[in-house]
Amino acid sequence: MRDHSLERILDAAHARMLERGLRRLTMDDVARHAGLARVTVYRRFSRKADLVQAVILRELERFLKAFEQAMAALPTPADQVAEGFAITLRLARAHPLLSRLLATEPETILPQLTLEAGPYLAAARDYLAAHVGDAEVAELYVRVALSFVLIPESAIPLRNDEDARAYARRHLVPLLPSEGIN
Amino acid sequence: MRDHSLERILDAAHARMLERGLRRLTMDDVARHAGLARVTVYRRFSRKADLVQAVILRELERFLKAFEQAMAALPTPADQVAEGFAITLRLARAHPLLSRLLATEPETILPQLTLEAGPYLAAARDYLAAHVGDAEVAELYVRVALSFVLIPESAIPLRNDEDARAYARRHLVPLLPSEGIN
Repeated sequence: MRDHSLERILDAAHARMLERGLRRLTMDDVARHAGLARVTVYRRFSRKADLVQAVILRELERFLKAFEQAMAALPTPADQVAEGFAITLRLARAHPLLSRLLATEPETILPQLTLEAGPYLAAARDYLAAHVGDAEVAELYVRVALSFVLIPESAIPLRNDEDARAYARRHLVPLLPSEGIN
Repeated sequence: MRDHSLERILDAAHARMLERGLRRLTMDDVARHAGLARVTVYRRFSRKADLVQAVILRELERFLKAFEQAMAALPTPADQVAEGFAITLRLARAHPLLSRLLATEPETILPQLTLEAGPYLAAARDYLAAHVGDAEVAELYVRVALSFVLIPESAIPLRNDEDARAYARRHLVPLLPSEGIN
């Protein structure tokens, strides 16, 4: 259950991360930009790391909503996997905060996307598992997509949606459980 | 073509990275521990980043040799994929330098394993492609294994060789090109 001050805190933290990066983010700065007392921010998030995680989880939820809308019209499980992979790469590459942090502060964002990515991976997997019908395959899809975000260089470069869809049809669709999606 | 002084430089750099980490590694320290003149080290590697990359590439080559030996006795492509995945996770988790840097200096090693991993990914892919018979599938295998090294948390934890083999048989073996390995 989210209330108004929580959204204000997350909005302010997101805006400041986009402007100043993650390393220089302070709780005081977030409180000031949210127009809230420091104590209000600290009541919600006792540590900066928790606030950062909450911002990232909200971005992930937003991404999953866009993903969900794009999937709704697609007729077959194979279409959903191909389009889902293409959309994931497109949205990740165009994501302002992710792009900014990967370019300017890889040392602060990479731990979140690797060693500390457990909670995000689990959230994406649990969401996708409902579609794919298999938690392990869902997780594998998330891992492969994240891998292409983190290491774009590839034997077959995935330059655009068409490349990504073709790749997914060759290598990800065959992993669908035989009973299919949904 | 490797000569004696190159091996001495790489040995010294490896030992110092294991002892002191990557951030505090200096070319002078490497020269001193290799018993070589600074100019000899700088003639080989003009930048610390090049030296670090050479150390990592040598570790990768050593890993691929161990991998090769383990594969030699295995009869079927499916066996090779299952065992290859299990060995990769086991050796990566037990690798002294990798474990040390991930635990104590994630901010210096993570870029090498993600944004700057292109050359290592390509080397591992090209090696594996000769076995798998398909560069894209080979690359996908490397990506999935690296993903489990970087994000161990999983819907199905791969705690030991048996877990890893079973996982590979379920989700990686089905990706083999129909013409099989070798």
